[in-house]
Amino acid sequence: MTDAELLLVFDSTIDPSGIEGWAQHFDSTGTTVTTYRLGGADVMVAQGPGTLLPLPADLPRPRQTARASGGFRLGRRELFPSGTAVTIGSAVVGDGDIAVFAGPCAVENPGQMMSTARAVARHGAVGLRGGAFKPRTTPYSFQGLKWAGLDLLAQAREETGLPILTEVVDPRHVDRMAEVVDGFQIGTRNMQNFELLTEVGRSGMPAVLKRGFGCTVDELLTAAEYILAEGNDQLVLCERGIRTFEGATRFTLDLSAVALLKRRTHLPVMVDPSHSLGIPELIEPLTLAAVAAGADALLIDVHVQPEQALCDGKQALLPEDFARLMSRLEMLSLGVGRRLAPAPAADYSEIHDALTPDVV
Amino acid sequence: MTDAELLLVFDSTIDPSGIEGWAQHFDSTGTTVTTYRLGGADVMVAQGPGTLLPLPADLPRPRQTARASGGFRLGRRELFPSGTAVTIGSAVVGDGDIAVFAGPCAVENPGQMMSTARAVARHGAVGLRGGAFKPRTTPYSFQGLKWAGLDLLAQAREETGLPILTEVVDPRHVDRMAEVVDGFQIGTRNMQNFELLTEVGRSGMPAVLKRGFGCTVDELLTAAEYILAEGNDQLVLCERGIRTFEGATRFTLDLSAVALLKRRTHLPVMVDPSHSLGIPELIEPLTLAAVAAGADALLIDVHVQPEQALCDGKQALLPEDFARLMSRLEMLSLGVGRRLAPAPAADYSEIHDALTPDVV
Amino acid sequence: MTDAELLLVFDSTIDPSGIEGWAQHFDSTGTTVTTYRLGGADVMVAQGPGTLLPLPADLPRPRQTARASGGFRLGRRELFPSGTAVTIGSAVVGDGDIAVFAGPCAVENPGQMMSTARAVARHGAVGLRGGAFKPRTTPYSFQGLKWAGLDLLAQAREETGLPILTEVVDPRHVDRMAEVVDGFQIGTRNMQNFELLTEVGRSGMPAVLKRGFGCTVDELLTAAEYILAEGNDQLVLCERGIRTFEGATRFTLDLSAVALLKRRTHLPVMVDPSHSLGIPELIEPLTLAAVAAGADALLIDVHVQPEQALCDGKQALLPEDFARLMSRLEMLSLGVGRRLAPAPAADYSEIHDALTPDVV
Amino acid sequence: MTDAELLLVFDSTIDPSGIEGWAQHFDSTGTTVTTYRLGGADVMVAQGPGTLLPLPADLPRPRQTARASGGFRLGRRELFPSGTAVTIGSAVVGDGDIAVFAGPCAVENPGQMMSTARAVARHGAVGLRGGAFKPRTTPYSFQGLKWAGLDLLAQAREETGLPILTEVVDPRHVDRMAEVVDGFQIGTRNMQNFELLTEVGRSGMPAVLKRGFGCTVDELLTAAEYILAEGNDQLVLCERGIRTFEGATRFTLDLSAVALLKRRTHLPVMVDPSHSLGIPELIEPLTLAAVAAGADALLIDVHVQPEQALCDGKQALLPEDFARLMSRLEMLSLGVGRRLAPAPAADYSEIHDALTPDVV
Repeated sequence: MTDAELLLVFDSTIDPSGIEGWAQHFDSTGTTVTTYRLGGADVMVAQGPGTLLPLPADLPRPRQTARASGGFRLGRRELFPSGTAVTIGSAVVGDGDIAVFAGPCAVENPGQMMSTARAVARHGAVGLRGGAFKPRTTPYSFQGLKWAGLDLLAQAREETGLPILTEVVDPRHVDRMAEVVDGFQIGTRNMQNFELLTEVGRSGMPAVLKRGFGCTVDELLTAAEYILAEGNDQLVLCERGIRTFEGATRFTLDLSAVALLKRRTHLPVMVDPSHSLGIPELIEPLTLAAVAAGADALLIDVHVQPEQALCDGKQALLPEDFARLMSRLEMLSLGVGRRLAPAPAADYSEIHDALTPDVV
Repeated sequence: MTDAELLLVFDSTIDPSGIEGWAQHFDSTGTTVTTYRLGGADVMVAQGPGTLLPLPADLPRPRQTARASGGFRLGRRELFPSGTAVTIGSAVVGDGDIAVFAGPCAVENPGQMMSTARAVARHGAVGLRGGAFKPRTTPYSFQGLKWAGLDLLAQAREETGLPILTEVVDPRHVDRMAEVVDGFQIGTRNMQNFELLTEVGRSGMPAVLKRGFGCTVDELLTAAEYILAEGNDQLVLCERGIRTFEGATRFTLDLSAVALLKRRTHLPVMVDPSHSLGIPELIEPLTLAAVAAGADALLIDVHVQPEQALCDGKQALLPEDFARLMSRLEMLSLGVGRRLAPAPAADYSEIHDALTPDVV
Repeated sequence: MTDAELLLVFDSTIDPSGIEGWAQHFDSTGTTVTTYRLGGADVMVAQGPGTLLPLPADLPRPRQTARASGGFRLGRRELFPSGTAVTIGSAVVGDGDIAVFAGPCAVENPGQMMSTARAVARHGAVGLRGGAFKPRTTPYSFQGLKWAGLDLLAQAREETGLPILTEVVDPRHVDRMAEVVDGFQIGTRNMQNFELLTEVGRSGMPAVLKRGFGCTVDELLTAAEYILAEGNDQLVLCERGIRTFEGATRFTLDLSAVALLKRRTHLPVMVDPSHSLGIPELIEPLTLAAVAAGADALLIDVHVQPEQALCDGKQALLPEDFARLMSRLEMLSLGVGRRLAPAPAADYSEIHDALTPDVV
Repeated sequence: MTDAELLLVFDSTIDPSGIEGWAQHFDSTGTTVTTYRLGGADVMVAQGPGTLLPLPADLPRPRQTARASGGFRLGRRELFPSGTAVTIGSAVVGDGDIAVFAGPCAVENPGQMMSTARAVARHGAVGLRGGAFKPRTTPYSFQGLKWAGLDLLAQAREETGLPILTEVVDPRHVDRMAEVVDGFQIGTRNMQNFELLTEVGRSGMPAVLKRGFGCTVDELLTAAEYILAEGNDQLVLCERGIRTFEGATRFTLDLSAVALLKRRTHLPVMVDPSHSLGIPELIEPLTLAAVAAGADALLIDVHVQPEQALCDGKQALLPEDFARLMSRLEMLSLGVGRRLAPAPAADYSEIHDALTPDVV
C-alpha cells in the first residue's frame, strides 16, 4: 500500500540536520517527502513504502505523528492537538473564548456602515464584517461598493477599533485588499475556487473559509489544504448551512458538522447563522446552539435598518436584537464552561457611549 | 377567498349555548364549522365567507383566535400560546424543564434491559425508551422481541419507576399496547402512515411523533393534525435528522427545525441525536445544542454493551458517557435559564444504589 | 467471514431429495439454510462457513448461484437473469414491451372515472390506475371515496376491459381489497411500512412498490425483500422522484435509479413521472426519457377535467395530451428496440368508438 | 409594481432612431432602459412604471416582447423562440441535431490524447473534450498539464479536425486560452464564480456553463446572465448531476432540468452523464434518456485505458463502448425525430482509417 501517508511534526527549533536525516531515511526506502512550515512547526509528509516501516530510533523524535489519506493532511487535529489560534487584527479565534464578528451583509453607505459598526462594537463584537464585493446570484443585483466599500470598512475600523473581515472574490484582488483588511472571507460559492484559495494562502493573511452549500465536510477539509499547503495556518472554517429539501429555512444549518470539525481539525470553527436561516427570529436560538455544539466564533448580520438593506436585509438583526443575543450568549457560554471574548480595549464602552449617543 | 380558515378557542367552561350561538352565526353566513375538544378547550374551525366578517360582539369572547391555511390548524401556537404539557406516566414534557428519555434502541433480553434501565434511572433520565417492535430496513434483521419485549419494558418500569415509551408500528397493535405502555413512539418511517396516526390519536395515549427523514417541518405539522383531530393533544414532535447529501453523519440533525417548531406549534419538541448522528462522540455536543435551540426533551440511546447490541449499537452511549452527558446538560440548561426535569422520586438514587451495586 | 450469504436457485422440478441433500450438506458445515419458493423455483439462502467451501459435485446443480450481503437477496438479478414478468390482470409488466397504466390520481365520481377510463383505454393504456384510499398530507383534504371508489374502479374495468391497480394503505384492508383489484400499489409514504408490505406479500397479489421519496435505491431493494420473502415475486418497483433541494419540480425524478435497478434486480421497473414533476408539460419528455433509461412500465395521471380534480389535478394530462404522449412513446420505443404493449383486445378501439362518442 | 421588467427584441436592422424613440418613450414615463446587443438583435430591458402602460403604436414594432423578473432576462426563451445555435469551431450545438463531444477527462500525455481523439473522431464525435486545468478536490491530486495540455489538445485538433472544448478555471487565463481553444467549459464548481463568467462573456468565445452540483435551475439561468449581459450569446447550459442523499451514483442526474431548461431558455442544453454517474455501465442508458428528455448535446468521457487514467478513470468509456453508445444513440435519435450531427468532413473516416490502424 504505497499510497499510505505518514505525517511528522517537528518543532521549528529542531536542528536542520534532523529534518535532513529524516528526509534521507525516507529517501532510502523509496519514499517521497514534502515539508511544510506551518504554525511554527515543520510538517513532513511522507508517502511510500517507508511509511510502513518502524521509525528509526536514532533520529530526533517528531512532536506528533499521524496517518493520513484522501488528501486531508495538514489540517488534521492530531498534528496540533491543542488547536490553532487565528489572529484577525486584535481579535483571536480559537483560543477558547467565543469571538463574535458582526456587521452588515453589504457595505452600503457611510451612515449605515458607521452606525452599524458602532452598535456591534458597543454590544461586544470583537470584529466587524461587511461585504464590499458581493457575489450575487444575478448580475442585475447590487454588486457591492467594491473598493469604495473597503474604504468605508477601514473608516469603521478606525472609529471602533474593530478589525475588519470582508469577502474576496477574485484572485486578482488579493494583494490590493491585503493592504487594507484584517482578514479575508472566502464565500460559500468560492469554496472550491482553488485559484482564489491558493492566492489567499500565499498572501499569508488570516482567512475564513465558508463551506460550500453543496459541499461535504470532507470537501471543506480538503479545500482548506489549498491554503494550508501554502504555509498559511491562519484559517478559520465556517459552517453556513447546506442545501437540502427543507425549504422552511434558506439553508439547513449543519451543527453536526461543527462538532465533527472540532474533532477532526486543529483549525477553529465559525458559524454563520444569518445566511443559513433567513429568518431573524431563529438566529438567537441557533447561535446559542452553535456554541453549544462547539463553535469558536460567530458571524452575525446586523443592520440598523434591515428593511432598507440592499442585500439580504430580511435576515439581519436590529442592534437591540443583537444586544439581547450577546447577553444570552454570555450566559450560554458559561453553561458550556467558556466565555465571550473580551472587547479589544478595556475602556471601550465608555469611549463609545460618548461617541455614539444616537445608537441603540 | 372562501378557503380562509378562522380558529376560535373557547374555555371548556363556556356555556354550551355560547358555542351554539357561534355555530349559528357562521351557519347564517354560509360558513362551515367543525369543533374539536382539545387540551381542555373547545376549538372551533370555521371555513367560508363568514371568516372574513367582523366577529359579532354579542357572543361570548373566544379565549384565542387565529387564522389558518394549508391544513395546519389545531397545532398552531396561537391557539395555546403558553404551550401544551404532555404527561407520559410520571414524566412531563413541555413544562419548561428538560426531560430526558433514555434506554436501549431495542429490548434484547432481561439482563440488558434491566441493567440499562437502572443505569439511565440512576443518572437522571425521567423515562425509559426501548424498542420491542423494530422496523428494520431488511426483513432478515432482528425485528425485536415484540410482545415479549413489552413485558421486559414493563418489568424495567416496575423496578426503576420510570415510565416507558416504545414504538408502535401497526394500527392493529394500538389497543393491546395501550394497556402496557406509558407513551407511544411513532417512528420516522411511519410519520405519514396516516392509519397508524389516526389509531394512536383515538387511543388518547401520549405519543411522540418523529419527523420523517425525507419530510419537511410543514409535513410534520400536518401529520400531527391526524392525531390532534381525534381530540388527542398529548403529542410531542421529535426531530431526528433528515436525509441530505452529507454522508459524514447518518442523517443531518436539523436544529433550525427545533427553533422553528417552538415558534409555530404549542406542542413540545423532542430531539433524538442518537439516530441522527450514528457517531457516539457527537451525541454530547449535539444534545447540548438541541437544548440551546429550544428542545424540551431528548431521546438518547444507551446500552451497557454497545458492541453486542442487536440493533444500532454503534451509536449507543455507555452508561458512563450518559452520566457525563447528563452532568454537562445540567450546566447547559442553567445557561439557557432552564433545568433538568427532576427524577420521579426524591429518594430514587438511594434506592438504586442499594439495588444495583453492579451498575456503572 | 461467517455472515457471507450464498444463494442457490433450483428448478421447482428438482427432486425433493436434491434440496434435502443440499440442506444436509450445509448443516454439516454449521451453515444455516432457509428456502423460499419464488417464481417457479426454489431459492436456498445459506449463511455461515459452508458458503465459503467448494460446492459438492455429487449434488444436483443449482440453476444459478449468487453471493449476497446487506439483506438484498431474493431480488438479485443473478437469480433470474432473464427477468421476472409480472401479470396484473390482462397486462404484463417485464416481458420486454412497454406497459402503460393510466387514469386519475383519485377516483372521484362515476362520470369522471368512466370517461377517463375510456379515454386511456382508447389511446393504448393496458391498465387503469385510480386511488380510492388516498394518503393525504393533511387530514382535512379529500381522503378518497374508499370502498365506494373501489366499486367504481371495478365498473370501469368491466366497461373497458382494463385491469385495475390501486393503492392500499392499511394492512387491515389487504384481504378485502384483494377480492376486487388486479394489483396493489404501495405508495411512496408506505415503502417502509413493513407490516403493510408483509400483508401484501402474503396476499400473493401482484404489487407495485413505489420508492420512498426520502429512500435510497438500496432501501427500495431491501423493502422489496419483505414481499419476496413471503414467496410473492409478482412485484414491480417504481421510481417516482426523490426529495432534493431543487424546487422547480415537485420531486427530482431519478432516472439513474431506473438504469441501476434494471442491472441489479430481476423485478421489472415502472416510472411515475406525473407525481414526480407536478408540471404537465414535462411529463412527455420525461416519460420518453424513462423508457430510454430502461423502464418497463409507466404510471400516468390522466383526468378529463384536471382543473376540477380533487387531488393533484395540476399534474394530470388531458386525454388529448395522453394520446400524443402515447404516439410519441410508440416511436421512441422503436428507437430503443422495443414496442408498446398491445391493448388487451384486438377489436378494442372499435368497441369503444361505439361506446364513447363523447370522449376526446 | 415598479420592478416589473419588460423586454423588447428588435432586429439589428432596425433604424437607430427607432431604438431611440423607444428609449425616449420609456424615459418620459420614469422607466429606465438598458440595451444589449445579443444574437444579431437588440434587446431592450425596461424597468419601471412605463412597462405597465400600453405600448405606443407609432414606434417600430419589436420582434418579440416578454415580461421578466428575478434577474432572469436575456436567456428567456420568449426572446428567441426558435432557439440559439452555438458554434464551437466546426461543431454546432442547438440546430436540432445531437452533437457529441467526447474525450478524456484530463489530458495526460501525447499518446493518450491522440489515440483517444482519433477513436472518438472515428466513432462520430463532433468535438473533443479534454481538461488541461483540472480543479481537484485536494491540492495533492494531479492538477492537469496546464498550458502543455492545451498544446496537446491543439495537436489533437490538427490531426482529427475536431474543435476543442476545455475548462477554464481562472479569469487571468481567459485571454491566453482564447487564442487556442474553440470553446470554454466552466465547471460545476465555478458556476457561481462570477468574475470568471464575466471574463468569459467578454471574450466573446463560445462556452459551456455547467450547473453547480448544489445549484438550482433558476440559479443556472441567472448565472448565465453574467455571460449574456456581456453581449455573448454563444452559450450552452450543461446538466451534470446534483447532490442528493442517494449515494448509489456519484451525483443524481436531473433530466427534468433538461426538459425544463428547453422550455425556459433559448440556449441549447448539454448533458454530461459521465461525471454524474461514476458508473460506466449506466452511461449508455442515461445518455439515451438525456436525448429523449430533449438534450441538444452530450459530453462523454472516453479513455483508451481507463484503469490508468490520472483523473476520474473509473467513469470513462472504452472506445468500443463509445462506438456502441453512438450506434444506439443514432437509433434513439430517430425515435425522437432527430439525428446525430454529421461529422465535420465527409471523407473523415477514410482519412482516419489510414492514419490510425491501431485504434479500436
